[in-house]
Amino acid sequence: MSRPPAGSPLRVALLGCGVVGTEVARLLQSQSTELAARVGAPLELAGIAVRDASRPREGLEGTGLDALLTEDGEGLVRRADIVIEVMGGIEPARGLLLAAIESGASVITANKALLAQDGPTLYAAADAAGVDIYFEAAVAGAIPIVRPVRESLAGDHVERILGIVNGTTNYVLDRMASEGLDLDVVVKEAQRLGYAEADPSADVDGHDAAAKAAILASLAFHTRVRLEDVAVEGIMGLTAQDIAWAKANDQVVKLLAIAERTEDGVVVRVHPALVPAAHPLAGVHGAFNAVFVEARSAGELMFYGRGAGGEPTASAVLGDVVSAARHRVLGGKGPVESSYAQLPVLPASHALTRVQIRLDVQDRPGVLAKVAAVVAEHGVSIEAVRQAPGDGVAHLVVTTHAASQEALDATVEAIRGIDVVDTVVSVLRVEGF
Amino acid sequence: MSRPPAGSPLRVALLGCGVVGTEVARLLQSQSTELAARVGAPLELAGIAVRDASRPREGLEGTGLDALLTEDGEGLVRRADIVIEVMGGIEPARGLLLAAIESGASVITANKALLAQDGPTLYAAADAAGVDIYFEAAVAGAIPIVRPVRESLAGDHVERILGIVNGTTNYVLDRMASEGLDLDVVVKEAQRLGYAEADPSADVDGHDAAAKAAILASLAFHTRVRLEDVAVEGIMGLTAQDIAWAKANDQVVKLLAIAERTEDGVVVRVHPALVPAAHPLAGVHGAFNAVFVEARSAGELMFYGRGAGGEPTASAVLGDVVSAARHRVLGGKGPVESSYAQLPVLPASHALTRVQIRLDVQDRPGVLAKVAAVVAEHGVSIEAVRQAPGDGVAHLVVTTHAASQEALDATVEAIRGIDVVDTVVSVLRVEGF
Repeated sequence: MSRPPAGSPLRVALLGCGVVGTEVARLLQSQSTELAARVGAPLELAGIAVRDASRPREGLEGTGLDALLTEDGEGLVRRADIVIEVMGGIEPARGLLLAAIESGASVITANKALLAQDGPTLYAAADAAGVDIYFEAAVAGAIPIVRPVRESLAGDHVERILGIVNGTTNYVLDRMASEGLDLDVVVKEAQRLGYAEADPSADVDGHDAAAKAAILASLAFHTRVRLEDVAVEGIMGLTAQDIAWAKANDQVVKLLAIAERTEDGVVVRVHPALVPAAHPLAGVHGAFNAVFVEARSAGELMFYGRGAGGEPTASAVLGDVVSAARHRVLGGKGPVESSYAQLPVLPASHALTRVQIRLDVQDRPGVLAKVAAVVAEHGVSIEAVRQAPGDGVAHLVVTTHAASQEALDATVEAIRGIDVVDTVVSVLRVEGF
Repeated sequence: MSRPPAGSPLRVALLGCGVVGTEVARLLQSQSTELAARVGAPLELAGIAVRDASRPREGLEGTGLDALLTEDGEGLVRRADIVIEVMGGIEPARGLLLAAIESGASVITANKALLAQDGPTLYAAADAAGVDIYFEAAVAGAIPIVRPVRESLAGDHVERILGIVNGTTNYVLDRMASEGLDLDVVVKEAQRLGYAEADPSADVDGHDAAAKAAILASLAFHTRVRLEDVAVEGIMGLTAQDIAWAKANDQVVKLLAIAERTEDGVVVRVHPALVPAAHPLAGVHGAFNAVFVEARSAGELMFYGRGAGGEPTASAVLGDVVSAARHRVLGGKGPVESSYAQLPVLPASHALTRVQIRLDVQDRPGVLAKVAAVVAEHGVSIEAVRQAPGDGVAHLVVTTHAASQEALDATVEAIRGIDVVDTVVSVLRVEGF
């Protein structure tokens, strides 16, 4: 890595000028004195690569920064010491980052889709070139989670991560719980308020959370986890009744990104789950994100904050810029994204989970015994059975101990076949108990 | 800083062999292969300095590590690349760390008392010698808070920190709330369970929290904050009634370490405060710790985890060991603990706070008007007045807007003098609303 003499300016290239890019550009300008003090050299914004440099940018008005807009991303990265990519999408982001790395620049990216799909290529390229790659903003926005997992827990073993990493779905579930509203009503409200996209499927179907889960799992387990390794289930199947029942039983429903180390390897999944109301994740409201980490020595840790938005994401980007810039001025290098452990990545069927099964059953003696017998036949053990409040028909809530998804699926199928069972109302996984 | 060739072992000196030291020694031994992979060179435990090397150590039985015990701390640090100090207290810890730094070793310390009293001397010495000093374990045990504040928020501005940084008092307040018990009963219970010391004063009087507040404030505001700059009030004045009333009003009482940046400088204080039940800090139960950070761009962040204990603290120490060791192998240096901002450190009287004042008053018309008039006379504005449930006598709860401590003290004094006021039952500060 080339090191400019201490004090001489570092040239920073910014790729992308959307909400985050605009904020990064403004902060580089307005905080230049303080950033120079923290880095040990001035940061000079050399250019902002955009698709159409002639289009006026609202956020840059009156800053003089619009003079830096350029359509020549390739040329820009070749003359930069530090390249910040906040354009999103796979190409041209991927090509520009690789070009930057090749030419010896340190890179910072907020691009979760790219990292989830092709992170290892970028990490390997950066390692080969001896430059830093940082991506704190790609997972959970402003929440410092990458650095703690990479560095603070470097002498520990992460065993499990439970993350609320999608603000839109957390907002939706939170509103459903607080207002007793149906999912589609709240999704429409979220769209109106700008918390959800016109096409909310990436959020509500869990794909956004899955990309972050892949990155988190790769980091935590030093293993290459790709987006397609993540089993995904969104929130669209959830009813107001599910949420209300959870609430009545001191539980909340959260969309969780779960990465865990089993005896045989790593399992990564995204799905809604019941979480006890006293669990720290239950207190994560609105569009906030949180990542709960279970480590062998450190025990339980949680990192909480804003998962999206221009300013919070720009804060995370700038923290990375300072680290990378300090390394160029003072020497040194950030941690390498090693996948040295390279544990087997297993399908979600290998995860042991607990479920809560809600049933409408006939109100007569012997029903519970029949259900219990069927569950036992499938090798699943029951942790608790409760009578839930109902009118006329009887309701049963069966909570199992941990079992394989296969055994649980078979159990639920068999319960459906019992003559005294009217309906299996819902089956929800249970986490954090 | 001397750099051994990559691959040649780094000599690690451990100072202290209590609960944390024993765990660090055991992890250095049991995790040696993985640590070597993460660092790029093996870590070789060169010795463990203790006062009495002949005393058998339970935790080291059967490990062979007891052969490394030595009473010659001075000699040990002089031949080490990395020195880990977990002995606590001011001397000989301070002298040994300075000797280590002088001889070119990187140092890691978990010693909050020493850092709160004399951190700047150590930081300056490390900076002059070009070696790393890390201290993640000194604040909030296993919770990665130092690294995020130093590095992740390096491009942002911290405006306020609210921390639950003492597990003993949090356990006590939590038990009071959940069981309705009196403070002295719970403190005795905590002593029996080993959560509180035989002499619990450092915890319950807030001094332990104050040391951590000083370190956090120094970090967050790049300003030298000493222990004696922190205004401290413990939890001994709290009654079961205070806690019960808070609970009935969707609030919890927490002992908070608060560091904030005002227009004129930095104010740091430790005192009990009412926190809304929906605030993330309210969900921090038992002996857990959490640090809530308000930053200009990142917004609200929270870091949660175990604040004490051998294993969690050892995890934080080892994370620092890996960082320091990587720097020695690969080159580079950790962030310097700079106090470049050096803002004025102001007495707590400069903090604007809100208070909730509970009064027993005579049950007749005009009482509220009289109280309101007295509050207004002192330039304090009222946010809310509520009638609290009572029998016979009337209860008033007055919540103020933010005002200076001086104005609030004068207000409370004047309220005491009103003829229709029987008693000022309690005055509690309010935070996080």
